[in-house]
Amino acid sequence: MDITLVGAGRLATNLGGALQEVGHRVVQVWSRTETSAMALANRLGCLWTTDIERILPADIVVLSIKDDALAPMARSLQQALDKTAPLVVHTAGSVAMDILPMARRGVFYPMQTFSKQRLASFDEIPLFVEAATEDDTRLLELLANSISRRVYRLSSEERKYLHLAAVFACNFSNHCYALSADILQAHGIPFEVMLPLIDQTAQKVHDLSPLEAQTGPAVRYDRLVIDSQERLLDGLPKEIYRTMSQSIHQSGKAL
Amino acid sequence: MDITLVGAGRLATNLGGALQEVGHRVVQVWSRTETSAMALANRLGCLWTTDIERILPADIVVLSIKDDALAPMARSLQQALDKTAPLVVHTAGSVAMDILPMARRGVFYPMQTFSKQRLASFDEIPLFVEAATEDDTRLLELLANSISRRVYRLSSEERKYLHLAAVFACNFSNHCYALSADILQAHGIPFEVMLPLIDQTAQKVHDLSPLEAQTGPAVRYDRLVIDSQERLLDGLPKEIYRTMSQSIHQSGKAL
Repeated sequence: MDITLVGAGRLATNLGGALQEVGHRVVQVWSRTETSAMALANRLGCLWTTDIERILPADIVVLSIKDDALAPMARSLQQALDKTAPLVVHTAGSVAMDILPMARRGVFYPMQTFSKQRLASFDEIPLFVEAATEDDTRLLELLANSISRRVYRLSSEERKYLHLAAVFACNFSNHCYALSADILQAHGIPFEVMLPLIDQTAQKVHDLSPLEAQTGPAVRYDRLVIDSQERLLDGLPKEIYRTMSQSIHQSGKAL
Repeated sequence: MDITLVGAGRLATNLGGALQEVGHRVVQVWSRTETSAMALANRLGCLWTTDIERILPADIVVLSIKDDALAPMARSLQQALDKTAPLVVHTAGSVAMDILPMARRGVFYPMQTFSKQRLASFDEIPLFVEAATEDDTRLLELLANSISRRVYRLSSEERKYLHLAAVFACNFSNHCYALSADILQAHGIPFEVMLPLIDQTAQKVHDLSPLEAQTGPAVRYDRLVIDSQERLLDGLPKEIYRTMSQSIHQSGKAL
């Protein structure tokens, strides 16, 4: 299929590469900034523009931009694409499909965390699709199945909770790593000593539920350790330490 | 070497197995409860007791018990082992070496999260050792090097921060998985859809610092998403969501 990418960030960069790898054609990249548009267009060997009026229709137009830029972009785009009416989809886990005003609208949400430096293989990435019509849902499933083995239909309402769950599993666990790195750095210990523990923690929940997998002072509710560790922190990390420990203890009691 | 294990929990079970595998001999297991002592002794093919007075000295006596049980146990043990004076070590990341009253005292801290169901390979587990004398430090290094390729000397003061960092990287990130699983379960979505994201999040910090690896609404500071996600939660998860988002935003600003 012919795809136009609106946005040139991490997700667009990864998705564009994966689509071309299996034989689809990215015809154009739009970005607000010229350097971003050019960088991704060069990578994909396609056209680029910074002018919404000049966005090419293609079979599917994929919007991968900041969540709160979606509504205004979709309005401008509807005028620009007026006659051609391609299927327009966004890739935002937390935004409802109906933010798009087009009759042919949909969502194509790859649930993964991306970086530009490290391109992801889409094969195992869960893709959640939704469209306003059954025909367009099938079109998105076709596209999704061409790059991933884990394709699911999911409504906007359910996806809201999926995305929230992903924020906990990914962004918040990564922030736990970041706070861990801060503590180590302050005491001259290299962060890499923590990697086996991080890997094992992720690996464990393939076999056990996270509730069953939990260990540490909070689940044992060792007040001595909890109190003395709290005293080593201040500011937000202290608040996080306290709330997390309470919440782990509460979850543990339900076990 | 001949080892006596005081404690029959997750750590003792994993450590006992690893030590015997490379040719050391676990001579005896002590546990407060008969069933735990017997279960581990059967696994290791050694003696067991529930009586502190009958604990055998061996070359090294390893205490793997609840942190706040260490002090009273060490006092009882000192009387019981009075004449023989073996090296006595504990395995608690957050407890100072000097909680042990013996002249020959030390710490043998494997920084990993263990379960009885899934025995860990010690090869890549960082082991942090400390002892009151240089001779005993070398003895612990010898023991540690026989099961792991990552052995470090670390003082009690530094280890306090290492353990705190591990609580963030392991227990707290696992609790993020648990909260994620709760949200998914409430909406009939299987937890396994989250595994690729969890794996990738752990994998990313092998190449990037956690600060550089961060993505999601909090680091972008998408107020729209943050506010609407907060409204989907209540109780402690809501507090965790808010504090984590603030802390991610604050860390991101420093980048």
